[in-house]
Amino acid sequence: MNNKVYFTPGPSELYPTVPQHLQEAMAQKIGSISHRSKQFQEIYASAESGLRELLQLPDEYEVFFVSSATEVWERAMQNNVRRESFHLVNGSFSKRFYEMAQELGREAQQHEVPFSQGFELESIHVPETAELVALIQNETSSGACLPVEDISRFRGKSPADALIYVDAVSSLPYPAFDYSKVDSVYFSVQKCFGLPAGLGVWLVNDRCMAKARDMQESGISIGSYHTLPSLQEKALQNQTVETPNVLNIYLLGKVLEDMNRIGIATIRQETEAKAAAVYAFLEQSSIFLPAVQKPEHCSKTTIVANTTIPASEVNKHLAKYDLQVGSGYGKYKESQIRIANFPAHTMEQVKKLLEKLRELEGLA
Amino acid sequence: MNNKVYFTPGPSELYPTVPQHLQEAMAQKIGSISHRSKQFQEIYASAESGLRELLQLPDEYEVFFVSSATEVWERAMQNNVRRESFHLVNGSFSKRFYEMAQELGREAQQHEVPFSQGFELESIHVPETAELVALIQNETSSGACLPVEDISRFRGKSPADALIYVDAVSSLPYPAFDYSKVDSVYFSVQKCFGLPAGLGVWLVNDRCMAKARDMQESGISIGSYHTLPSLQEKALQNQTVETPNVLNIYLLGKVLEDMNRIGIATIRQETEAKAAAVYAFLEQSSIFLPAVQKPEHCSKTTIVANTTIPASEVNKHLAKYDLQVGSGYGKYKESQIRIANFPAHTMEQVKKLLEKLRELEGLA
Repeated sequence: MNNKVYFTPGPSELYPTVPQHLQEAMAQKIGSISHRSKQFQEIYASAESGLRELLQLPDEYEVFFVSSATEVWERAMQNNVRRESFHLVNGSFSKRFYEMAQELGREAQQHEVPFSQGFELESIHVPETAELVALIQNETSSGACLPVEDISRFRGKSPADALIYVDAVSSLPYPAFDYSKVDSVYFSVQKCFGLPAGLGVWLVNDRCMAKARDMQESGISIGSYHTLPSLQEKALQNQTVETPNVLNIYLLGKVLEDMNRIGIATIRQETEAKAAAVYAFLEQSSIFLPAVQKPEHCSKTTIVANTTIPASEVNKHLAKYDLQVGSGYGKYKESQIRIANFPAHTMEQVKKLLEKLRELEGLA
Repeated sequence: MNNKVYFTPGPSELYPTVPQHLQEAMAQKIGSISHRSKQFQEIYASAESGLRELLQLPDEYEVFFVSSATEVWERAMQNNVRRESFHLVNGSFSKRFYEMAQELGREAQQHEVPFSQGFELESIHVPETAELVALIQNETSSGACLPVEDISRFRGKSPADALIYVDAVSSLPYPAFDYSKVDSVYFSVQKCFGLPAGLGVWLVNDRCMAKARDMQESGISIGSYHTLPSLQEKALQNQTVETPNVLNIYLLGKVLEDMNRIGIATIRQETEAKAAAVYAFLEQSSIFLPAVQKPEHCSKTTIVANTTIPASEVNKHLAKYDLQVGSGYGKYKESQIRIANFPAHTMEQVKKLLEKLRELEGLA
């Protein structure tokens, strides 16, 4: 029996109701039903409508299920970029999207700022030739975020035809986007939705759909089974092109029911309250210091701190109390810790974590 | 509580040990562990070595985890075909691979025979220009199979550089391939491995790896995150590029332990014994008739029968006894039934199914 509480930034703590939903899924034999059955269509419809409700998603948006956010990066390039994309880069994941564009033969431009820094909008010039503007709302590797109000300003800073893409992999449903000011948002279920990994969700509006169709009609290959038009054709029937991760779509629908019962306003308030508690602790700690300096760029959902005690030592201490935080990303593995603050984490658990981190002060 | 036994051709009946493995996964919090942790590497290694043992896979083969067999079709084209592929087509899935090649801008040639027919090797001419020869060992839509001995003859019939790909989506681990006579085999876990859907397994040998590297070095884009070299780089560390379906990789490893305990010889014998019982019933039935005529082309794992009673009526009758077969594929939806004969199905369950199908004789 593993009683550890995972504050790792994804995969992370499962949403508390997941084990019981999984048990129910086994009792209902959800793993055996056909992905072309009416029963599956109802499961699909439930997940989609639950998501629309929680995110307050406008009707012009489609909801597509793919295998990961990593897949979204590739499909975005194939379906929405003929030649050139523009990327805000301030960490490993935003960098990876930029590199992937190049691997797929696109010309990619970047505006890069150092790891742990947010972006100053005044200094960003979006090229006139950019067809896709890749924003990173929450950089999971560094804990730097881009405020929602800043995201909404990119439409005005970008060419009229450019599609604004937002990476919200490790933050949704927390950020209250103005969806009319962007064109696509994507995330993975193993972060804030507290599910097992293996499902990515890609939200696209009618502008993304139209661009994909334009590209296709002009004879460009936009992929095969996961083109936007193929995804849409099946989504209209509450189905997917391939046999999907049925179990995860079922679990997503169930967790969304739970989250909608609580309400997005409460989830956001709780996220902020827990984040405030963590940052207050970090500010007064002699061991930890928020890695991101400007408060408005400090992520509420993936909180990163520099640590004078190696991250592995921090986790060795926490393990005694069945707690675990994420180590730093890449070369920051030992010099930073990452604390996930997802809806699955309760204030009580956060307080226990901070109490045990505080104990390290005496040991340092 | 759903007590139905699913003889649908995938998703299908879960392997009987899956619910208990899933319960253990929850107790161990497998859904929360990092895909970069040592614990995940052990899970990955266990699934891979279990598969190598069960399939008696030679060392020159790599084992890669992707999201579906549908994804394999796309990646195969991107990584192993510069210009031209050749496809055996006798049903919906083999046809789809052929079409996908075209969607990805390749020139695809096909040798097509009617639905429900197998292939006569003498009449097949593999073009001298074919870089990939797509064989379909088991056409899930029609129940026609290509005997393993015939598959082994394609090396001699194909250009020396051509890569022989084998679709064994709904048959592995049953067919005892001579892996030295082919280059790639792929399958999905929701068929014969009795797992929830959402994971594809792609086996490739060193020839496939070399071709992908050649293409990459000559400046061709072979994709982004799921190129063969990227998959291999991570696989060498018992990891995947993206956050994968960790839970399914865990379950696959556990089911493989169970299957290896039973032994591949026993699994094959049981598959044959159950198939023989089903075909013996079909031969004497006045309602059902094997859809595939030549015995050597009759699949052992997805058995398809023409039915004079609409498939939906057959299932209405079976539902009274908590049984379900697959309906026919596409336009054969009502005129055929498909009976999965996977390792998850016991002889006792098969006998009960046949007994209840026999009852229909009196009602016809």
